[in-house]
Amino acid sequence: MSSQSKSYAVQANVLWQKQPKANAELFALTYGALIGELLRDLEQPDLIQEELDKMGYSMGCRSVEELLAKTELKCATFDETAEAMKMAFRMFFGISADSKIAKDGEYTIYFTDNPLTLFVELPDHLQELQYNQLLAGWCRGMLESLQFDCACSIISDILKGDSVTTVQIRLNQVLQDGAGEEYQEE
Amino acid sequence: MSSQSKSYAVQANVLWQKQPKANAELFALTYGALIGELLRDLEQPDLIQEELDKMGYSMGCRSVEELLAKTELKCATFDETAEAMKMAFRMFFGISADSKIAKDGEYTIYFTDNPLTLFVELPDHLQELQYNQLLAGWCRGMLESLQFDCACSIISDILKGDSVTTVQIRLNQVLQDGAGEEYQEE
Repeated sequence: MSSQSKSYAVQANVLWQKQPKANAELFALTYGALIGELLRDLEQPDLIQEELDKMGYSMGCRSVEELLAKTELKCATFDETAEAMKMAFRMFFGISADSKIAKDGEYTIYFTDNPLTLFVELPDHLQELQYNQLLAGWCRGMLESLQFDCACSIISDILKGDSVTTVQIRLNQVLQDGAGEEYQEE
Repeated sequence: MSSQSKSYAVQANVLWQKQPKANAELFALTYGALIGELLRDLEQPDLIQEELDKMGYSMGCRSVEELLAKTELKCATFDETAEAMKMAFRMFFGISADSKIAKDGEYTIYFTDNPLTLFVELPDHLQELQYNQLLAGWCRGMLESLQFDCACSIISDILKGDSVTTVQIRLNQVLQDGAGEEYQEE
């Protein structure tokens, strides 16, 4: 871990400590109730995934403003946004995440603790359901606010027996204005 | 406030500090997403209220077990459950609530801070919606687990312009076994 990355991690931890808090179990149960309601209403896993993605997106747009206001993060390049995602996971969800550059324009964020899935076991007939899609949508919302239009998806999930939960982030395009222009100049 | 009541308040505060935490804003936004989804699915405020009540009830049944395991609360009489409710509001929601005996078999729990309603404004056409019904259902679930079958409802709400949010607790009947028998002997 670089010293810059370590300093971000420390900062994220301090910010997490300072955040107004709710009870983790009730949060998990409320999220579970939301999933239950979506299942009842929409039934199809792909429609539920889409809906969770939208909800996460709008939360992400809100979270990133706070993230930028409270940290000295710079996200001039797509690669630099990986640090922002890690900080956000820590600051907003208390999740200690790691990141890994996969190739140009693609990285993954992965973690083991997940407050959304306390008490959760996916029954056999719901193995298709992306229970954690909210987190992918949340990343997408943050990244778009940072001028990076990305495709974000859950590619592994502890709920489904994987050893870590992984959000894959793929850059589609750099949007105009702000960070976008700086990125172009590199 | 009696010294017993003060000691409970201190204990509840310590327990709240120790609880695993989630971010309050994301919790509020997730609850908001749940309400939004219920509105889309059920449309009618009374159906939504019923659903929120059920969700709260099942959370309450879970919360009360933890409350009893971690505190020295005694709830032999209905009146004593008011302390339990106040402790639970503090321990699980971080809410500092007060209680007031209304008459025999009835009390209210009231508070001003409410983590469920961060960012929330009820539009005019949703004034009928009991946005916080989850909390009433949650009390009902806890009380029933304590052997007190109660009717719990939100009778005032800051969201609707009231100065406090109030849950009214009315005892229907003491259930058999455990606390119930002790209550009868008084």
